[in-house]
Amino acid sequence: SCNIKKVTIEDIFSGKLQAHDPEATWISDTELLYRTSDGNVIKLNVLSKTNKTLAEGKMFESFKNQGSYKPIKLQVSPDLKYVLVAYNIVPIGLFFDRERVQLTPNEVQSTALQYAGWGPKGQQLIFIFENNIYYKAQVNSPSIRLVSTGSLGVVFNGLADWLYEEEIFQTHIAHWWSPDGLRLAYATINDTLVPKMEIPMFTNALYPSGQEYRYPKAGEENPDIYLSVVSLNGPLHTVRMRKPEDPRIRKDYYITMVKWATSTKLAVNWLNRAQNNSILTLCEATTGICTKKHEDESDSWLHRQNEPPLFSRDGYRFFFTRAVPQGGRGKFFHISMSTSQPNSSTDTLQSLTSGDWDVTQILAYNEDTKLVYFLSTEDDARRRQLYSANTTGSFNRRCLSCNLSCGYISGSFSPDANYFLLNCKGPGVPHTAVYSTRDGEYEKLLDVELNKQLNTTVNNTQMPKVEYRKISIDDYCLNMQIVMPAGFTETAHYPLLLLVDGTPGGQMVTEQFQVDWTTVLVSSFNTIVMRLDGRGSGFQGTNLLHRVKKKLGELEERDQLEALRIISQLPYIDSSRVGVYGKVSLLGDMFDNLPSTLSYIWVWLVFLQMARLTDNMEQLRDKKLMIIHPTADEKVHFQHTAKFITHLINEKANYTLQIYPDEGHILHSRDSQLHLSQSLVNYFVECFRPPEIPTEDKVEQDNEDDG
Amino acid sequence: SCNIKKVTIEDIFSGKLQAHDPEATWISDTELLYRTSDGNVIKLNVLSKTNKTLAEGKMFESFKNQGSYKPIKLQVSPDLKYVLVAYNIVPIGLFFDRERVQLTPNEVQSTALQYAGWGPKGQQLIFIFENNIYYKAQVNSPSIRLVSTGSLGVVFNGLADWLYEEEIFQTHIAHWWSPDGLRLAYATINDTLVPKMEIPMFTNALYPSGQEYRYPKAGEENPDIYLSVVSLNGPLHTVRMRKPEDPRIRKDYYITMVKWATSTKLAVNWLNRAQNNSILTLCEATTGICTKKHEDESDSWLHRQNEPPLFSRDGYRFFFTRAVPQGGRGKFFHISMSTSQPNSSTDTLQSLTSGDWDVTQILAYNEDTKLVYFLSTEDDARRRQLYSANTTGSFNRRCLSCNLSCGYISGSFSPDANYFLLNCKGPGVPHTAVYSTRDGEYEKLLDVELNKQLNTTVNNTQMPKVEYRKISIDDYCLNMQIVMPAGFTETAHYPLLLLVDGTPGGQMVTEQFQVDWTTVLVSSFNTIVMRLDGRGSGFQGTNLLHRVKKKLGELEERDQLEALRIISQLPYIDSSRVGVYGKVSLLGDMFDNLPSTLSYIWVWLVFLQMARLTDNMEQLRDKKLMIIHPTADEKVHFQHTAKFITHLINEKANYTLQIYPDEGHILHSRDSQLHLSQSLVNYFVECFRPPEIPTEDKVEQDNEDDG
Repeated sequence: SCNIKKVTIEDIFSGKLQAHDPEATWISDTELLYRTSDGNVIKLNVLSKTNKTLAEGKMFESFKNQGSYKPIKLQVSPDLKYVLVAYNIVPIGLFFDRERVQLTPNEVQSTALQYAGWGPKGQQLIFIFENNIYYKAQVNSPSIRLVSTGSLGVVFNGLADWLYEEEIFQTHIAHWWSPDGLRLAYATINDTLVPKMEIPMFTNALYPSGQEYRYPKAGEENPDIYLSVVSLNGPLHTVRMRKPEDPRIRKDYYITMVKWATSTKLAVNWLNRAQNNSILTLCEATTGICTKKHEDESDSWLHRQNEPPLFSRDGYRFFFTRAVPQGGRGKFFHISMSTSQPNSSTDTLQSLTSGDWDVTQILAYNEDTKLVYFLSTEDDARRRQLYSANTTGSFNRRCLSCNLSCGYISGSFSPDANYFLLNCKGPGVPHTAVYSTRDGEYEKLLDVELNKQLNTTVNNTQMPKVEYRKISIDDYCLNMQIVMPAGFTETAHYPLLLLVDGTPGGQMVTEQFQVDWTTVLVSSFNTIVMRLDGRGSGFQGTNLLHRVKKKLGELEERDQLEALRIISQLPYIDSSRVGVYGKVSLLGDMFDNLPSTLSYIWVWLVFLQMARLTDNMEQLRDKKLMIIHPTADEKVHFQHTAKFITHLINEKANYTLQIYPDEGHILHSRDSQLHLSQSLVNYFVECFRPPEIPTEDKVEQDNEDDG
Repeated sequence: SCNIKKVTIEDIFSGKLQAHDPEATWISDTELLYRTSDGNVIKLNVLSKTNKTLAEGKMFESFKNQGSYKPIKLQVSPDLKYVLVAYNIVPIGLFFDRERVQLTPNEVQSTALQYAGWGPKGQQLIFIFENNIYYKAQVNSPSIRLVSTGSLGVVFNGLADWLYEEEIFQTHIAHWWSPDGLRLAYATINDTLVPKMEIPMFTNALYPSGQEYRYPKAGEENPDIYLSVVSLNGPLHTVRMRKPEDPRIRKDYYITMVKWATSTKLAVNWLNRAQNNSILTLCEATTGICTKKHEDESDSWLHRQNEPPLFSRDGYRFFFTRAVPQGGRGKFFHISMSTSQPNSSTDTLQSLTSGDWDVTQILAYNEDTKLVYFLSTEDDARRRQLYSANTTGSFNRRCLSCNLSCGYISGSFSPDANYFLLNCKGPGVPHTAVYSTRDGEYEKLLDVELNKQLNTTVNNTQMPKVEYRKISIDDYCLNMQIVMPAGFTETAHYPLLLLVDGTPGGQMVTEQFQVDWTTVLVSSFNTIVMRLDGRGSGFQGTNLLHRVKKKLGELEERDQLEALRIISQLPYIDSSRVGVYGKVSLLGDMFDNLPSTLSYIWVWLVFLQMARLTDNMEQLRDKKLMIIHPTADEKVHFQHTAKFITHLINEKANYTLQIYPDEGHILHSRDSQLHLSQSLVNYFVECFRPPEIPTEDKVEQDNEDDG
């Protein structure tokens, strides 16, 4: 095995170690569309096992942005006749037989298209310019403006402002088609009273310019939001959904989830600003009247508020997850089933699952077998397996994937829930297959070949070995992942890099296949890399999650320090060569300006020999510290780094900084991504170099104490 | 000597190794005022050798800004009755017998005082609010507004805008009192058409804010400037000085120098935008008519355009320096004497000095002896000595200070030029004395004790040894200073740090006493520090200076590389441990936006193993590179660093960065200054650590080539 190649940064960026995401969608109960790694869109019949290429990525090569190495994204219309090609900066076009349709309406002054997408039927199409929504019934029909209150950067129709995109919906899309395509629900988000944040941009012009957007810091005015439904059948008619009458949802509230239950009923979740009270309503699209279906509250904060319930076809039954007390570790997320009673105004609510594990996603409900399908962590917090549960009787639960030697599953069911597309995301090389679940049986129909090259590469490469451990800190048991070189021996002494993540509810220790710059450190530079989910992390009960409330940064650090202490005692770890990398929460006097919806603030930090950042900045004086920050980070403002550095300067602490000018929270340019990965590898290789041994050659290095 | 203390960063910042500047001014031919290191203002009679303390610094201790360690600055009125106390942020007050006079006029909305200062007579006082000048004839008289066109940040009266302050006048003061106190000349600088530069400020508020000021980059609109004289005797009367009729001084011009020749005549220097044509005029303050007295031009650019001529008492004769061809090394600066002929409109112009050395300052003209006194580099380019020259006959020249074992002199003459205050600034500990020059004799009258503590400290400290060398590169002979540890031995191997300065016309190699962080590297960390004046530096002829035109950064680098190559061959230099620090000019494709009046752009750079920055960024890949930049640097914009870093990222070059948030070009806070010095020492100590010797203990460090 000594001739097998080790992993380099070049391998990571060549793409040959990256798994491909097929982004599959079901278009009927037996057909799905997916994307190949070349960007082709394929229609697959899962019964006949036949493929048809609907569009080829290379046809649209010329629309790719310069420097982009990802294939261009193609969206096929529901009638499979058109392809929508989205590309940056230049406005979008519609293509069919190489004929192009321009979308820009005459009245629009700014030519930047913000969004375009198909509706659920035929060639229905909406697109958004200047925060106003336009509709075409057919590709060649005239376009109709559905709303005209939009104002760039201030009033958003059908799209999210920064706060809703980044912190609530997790997507910039803020409109929702009714399943029959007759109605469109859209959010109007008004940022008029939200203070402006300005980000300096340096490189694009002779003079630097400030880029403004609305960003509510803690205590500042939040955006205002309401929801409208426009009927597209006949003359335009718009109805605004009415906020439920409830003292807990007054002026300041969020809409965190919108989903059509039926063609005329809309499920909407409302959350108060303190994020500890939520109301799930069902709104009548024709009248705007919203009826409470469920309420939830928390002593700390409510988690997972943007996940949509799953409705039965008639809309009288729905499934959703909520946190239910399970004993010593607090609440876990389990499936509740709500069923309307024919002759009663109250619904029955039943808990289908329980235990000290989380349901992570409800996938489907089969109307015939009355089985509900879901993913959960029952097997292990670091895993996701597919289960079915009966919705009658004793709610019998069955693991369908536990014997597939796959640790981390994602996927989707066909509309009638008879077929399941399974993405196995690890621990081995990711692979995709289609299973039949007809009549409750579970049978593989076919494999979708996606990662052939990755398989070959991995077989010829010295990939790291991965182990898992649990460690006890205070009264908690924390999950830990240890990534070791292929040639690991217990008698050697390895440097140790701990990866941390300060995002509340996040999870670092999973069985997903993952290759990044840390793989290079392990494979090529004999480093041991460790991931830890400490207090504040998710999928292990709300006690662990909520422990960090109002002391963010503090307990995570304690956990990390303690984990380092324990792991450093292992005989094969060289405790003099220990480093930490991650996005770290920082609180304390210097950060009294928390973001509005969030309870955390972070800078990107790399440092050697962990020190308590918040309590005792002095401790940082003896450490090596590197800070990394893109200057146009719209989520974690460069201002935090500037303030943190000012404190470091006042405390006489050493630091080095790397910035990525004009880059945002997610590095956009490949050059920047590569530079960051290479810098991190170089930095730690340098840090982990064994200390020098004094020799005679050396010029004496007197220090000031000699005097 | 091994028990003698070495220099530490703490020594530098405790102030005990800093020389005190007495800021002496003559108030009569035998009396001068100076400041002690405690901030006291002393009146000294040089004949009676008696001292009188006019004001004590500690009286005003409470007005000091927090964190400032400098004594507060006191200005005594010409009648010695009042003290003007200038302190930041809070408006200024006037103090006498602890009684305070507030200056803020009623009509002023912004309360920030921009300037206050005494006139030449009695208690005359002007102060500036909102870019308008106010005048008081006596401390207790009402204040009169002299001009009302001011607009903050846009139209400046009596003060310089950013460009004039930083690049032309080298002071924010843009008004000039006539010697009799009857008239005030002031500049009006209009920045209306100058583009705005915005500097992001991070730490002072909840949201970051942009601080705007006018900054003309190359090719952009410059500020407009004109000069007015207001008569203060009787009703206010303002006359605008008229630009000379000359095709070379059209719309775009600078006023680079203003000085009163007599009580009614004003010398004004005008320079075209290309900076290669200048016209020196004498303006009649009562009519505004300006008459040409001298013209100058250059094939490259004109240098030293802000130095005032020296006038005889009657104003009919004046002395000024101009660059005169001296053979192979180009032009050197020499004294010209211009004398008006009683019955002729033309003046006679005589060159009083010549040779391949520069007159650096004309100090005085004695009307009785007809001697002119000046400083020059005749002794050596790195020195400044005091000379006298006859203005008649063969212009006999005599060095008055060459036998004082002082290398670098500054100072000032009493009004009648009978006495001279001499500041010896090096190479030893600075000291100050008063000399008599009566009747052409040169005799020491007294020593002014200022640096007693510094003397003691230096005697008990291992100060570096300093040597000078010349090296030949191409056809130039360049000056070099080598600073060595006190215990230097030829047989040891020392790391080498080269200090460079990219400012055209600057000089690094002088005999001035200098203690800074590099002294710590030499004294405590056995490093050899080298300073080099390469092409582009001053005081060695215009050929060397002008060589860099249109290829800034390129030749300096060549010189620095070549000097490094030569010095690295010395047996006591360890050529594997060589570093460079300085403010470096950067040109090339990435910087097409040169500042308007300047021809250079720089970032602060620290790097190991010099590489050509401009031609071949690739070379930087193998080097260690640290960039340092205050984020609010109004002179060298952080934008340059951002663009430079973007190029480094694209070229896959490693770098580290240190920023000083919200600090300007000159670091203001003591914490920042200390942090910068300590970081530089740490960085180079770390870089200069001898390379490790591999040992068996070491875990094998495979690299990717093994595969």
